[in-house]
Amino acid sequence: MARIKLEEISTRAPEHLKKEIVKEETATIVAKLNELQNLLYAEGKHSILVILQGMDASGKDGLIRNVFGKMNPQGVTVHSFKVPTAEELGHDFLWRVHKQAPARGMIQLFNRSHYEDILITRVHNLCDKDTAVKRMRAINDFEWLLTEHNDTVILKFYLHISEKEQAERLQERLDNPAKQWKYNEGDLKEAKFWPEYRKMYEDCFEECNKVPWTIVPADQNWYKEFIVAQKLYEVLSGLKMRYPGLKK
Amino acid sequence: MARIKLEEISTRAPEHLKKEIVKEETATIVAKLNELQNLLYAEGKHSILVILQGMDASGKDGLIRNVFGKMNPQGVTVHSFKVPTAEELGHDFLWRVHKQAPARGMIQLFNRSHYEDILITRVHNLCDKDTAVKRMRAINDFEWLLTEHNDTVILKFYLHISEKEQAERLQERLDNPAKQWKYNEGDLKEAKFWPEYRKMYEDCFEECNKVPWTIVPADQNWYKEFIVAQKLYEVLSGLKMRYPGLKK
Repeated sequence: MARIKLEEISTRAPEHLKKEIVKEETATIVAKLNELQNLLYAEGKHSILVILQGMDASGKDGLIRNVFGKMNPQGVTVHSFKVPTAEELGHDFLWRVHKQAPARGMIQLFNRSHYEDILITRVHNLCDKDTAVKRMRAINDFEWLLTEHNDTVILKFYLHISEKEQAERLQERLDNPAKQWKYNEGDLKEAKFWPEYRKMYEDCFEECNKVPWTIVPADQNWYKEFIVAQKLYEVLSGLKMRYPGLKK
Repeated sequence: MARIKLEEISTRAPEHLKKEIVKEETATIVAKLNELQNLLYAEGKHSILVILQGMDASGKDGLIRNVFGKMNPQGVTVHSFKVPTAEELGHDFLWRVHKQAPARGMIQLFNRSHYEDILITRVHNLCDKDTAVKRMRAINDFEWLLTEHNDTVILKFYLHISEKEQAERLQERLDNPAKQWKYNEGDLKEAKFWPEYRKMYEDCFEECNKVPWTIVPADQNWYKEFIVAQKLYEVLSGLKMRYPGLKK
């Protein structure tokens, strides 16, 4: 497969799509997803791991709220990976990640993930090339472990926004009092590393694709939510789940 | 490498060895080990995972007490793996194991381990052949993850006792009031599966040897302790550790 080049992929919805119609469609899918999530929980056989990656302000939080926010919180959990603690740094980089893997019946969202260990760390030269190659192999093994040994379906989404859209959103965080809490001084600095991040992401798509990635055009929230909801629906409805009936 | 056949390996010390001399030698090594463990902890670079496997009454508990019992408990921890809980069964079989992996600077002992997931489970047909093959691959990947990404040295010991010695020890557990607490009705039943266990262990030695096994003749506790202490000393002294000096 040819290497994915992010610059060649649109960050926007196809022109012919009408926002209002797509939003209605998304609402319909989300309602069905809530039913399927209930079934997933009841059956307790499969588990779902949704990995969300993307540049700052690519809209991970909004996606979580709008697509997963109405599901039963007993069956849907979110884990945000922050800078590793001293205890976490005492272990291999997947130790803290494995602990957060979903149990059967659960949907687990990763807001950022183990991919940061080959993204931000490489951009800032905290991880050399040799280590990165080893980590990529370990990530593939790890994702395969979950897939093969816990009936986990892993969905990996890259929220693909343009530099222009990101700049606008970061400015909005500065200007809007309700969004200022999200603003980090570091965000603008990180944004300058865009070309490096793009390259590192492309490496991930290339080297860690045993479980495939979905590139989600994310400049428009309504389209981003539609794509993720649709993908999730496709996967959940394909599991042929059944309510288990009365316990024997 | 030819398949290891446990029946062809002695469960006893070589005839020429004198118990008293070996015991003195072990005491000397154990004293050095305590110093090396302190260094391991101080340096905080490597971690050690000691996996103890063996039939019931093969002397895992005594080994832990006599070889590791005098080390600083702040740097040495033991985890005994029991029948998985409902929560643990909701995850892949390595989920509960990874949580117990040693942090840098630590010695972690596994009293039984993830190998039970391809031993007792196979003996009792709770795990089919196909699953066992997948688990073996996952175990190799997992042990490699620890080795490569946390400077973990993994030492795998199979405590090799004879059926006759086991029968005597189980009888002792029945007869001796101070040992009756260790007796399980299931022990005698499990002992009848000896040939099946032997085959399953031999499979482990063959398929999960990316990190090699040490077969420890274990009918005599003094010799068993000597072999394990010696192996541990060999590994720890080979790490070229240094006290880090004052923090900068």
